[in-house]
Order: sequence, then C-alpha cells, then structure tokens
Amino acid sequence: MNFKASIQIMPLEALLDPQGKAVTGSMKNLGLSEISNVRIGKNIHLQVEAKDQKEAESKVESACKKLLCNEIMESYSFTVTPVA
Amino acid sequence: MNFKASIQIMPLEALLDPQGKAVTGSMKNLGLSEISNVRIGKNIHLQVEAKDQKEAESKVESACKKLLCNEIMESYSFTVTPVA
Repeated sequence: MNFKASIQIMPLEALLDPQGKAVTGSMKNLGLSEISNVRIGKNIHLQVEAKDQKEAESKVESACKKLLCNEIMESYSFTVTPVA
Repeated sequence: MNFKASIQIMPLEALLDPQGKAVTGSMKNLGLSEISNVRIGKNIHLQVEAKDQKEAESKVESACKKLLCNEIMESYSFTVTPVA
C-alpha cells in the first residue's frame, strides 16, 4: 500500500528564530505592521510504501528522527494518509 | 482581536525540487528505501492583529503574495484561527 505523509517541522519555542525575526521586521516595511511573531519551519511531503498505516507511521517517524528533524533545535509532527 | 495563521508553502508540482531529491537519495542510504517523492517546502506560523477573521485572512494573503511566497515557483495555502 502507498501512503502520503505530511510533516511539519518547527524551531522549538524556546529558541530564537533569526529567519522569522528578519521576516517580522520586513513586514513593517511592507505596511503589514499588524503581523508579528513570525516563525519559519519546514513542510515536507513524501510517499511511503508499507503494508499498513502503523508501519507507514513508524517509517515516517524513523525518517524524521534520523534525517529530517534536528531534535535539539526543532520539533516535528506528521500525518499519514493512505493513497487510493 | 488576535489571530494565529499557519501557512504552508510548497514548490509547484511541475517543478523539480532538488533539495527533496537529495533527501530522497539519502533515505536509501538510511535503509528507508520505501520512502520516495520527498518534496520540501516551508511552514510559517505568525500572529496577526485584525478586527475580524476576514481582515486577518486578507492581511495574511497579502503577506504571502508580497513577501513569503514566490508564486512563480511556489504555491501557498493557509489557515487563520482566532486566539482566545
């Protein structure tokens, strides 16, 4: 079976996000001063082949831990859905 | 009123995503060869002050178009929710 995973990776709340801070500053210059607290993370889509939902989830979890997410600085969450 | 927005920005389907391609290759080396078609985009969280949901959405839309998303290469979608 084929599954689609959508993974959200964000910098931990406790850490500064310099990229987000720069973007927050730029919002003011664009006349969008009502926008604040910008934080920028990653959004990853992938396909995974597995025999059931549980196996697919464990593969995605393993990919996050081993490669996609640096758990010292980032947190992740994901959803896995079957592809028809 | 305060609103929270969550914005997903992904490279257009028609375009190559070299970063995603590199990650797909690395999956094989990690013993996760069942994972394919990795595509990497951005996930942005921000706060916006507006008098109602509609105004908040139009501000976020404007931020996407003006700064966050390069519409030639990327597509975006977002959700806006009120903060208690």
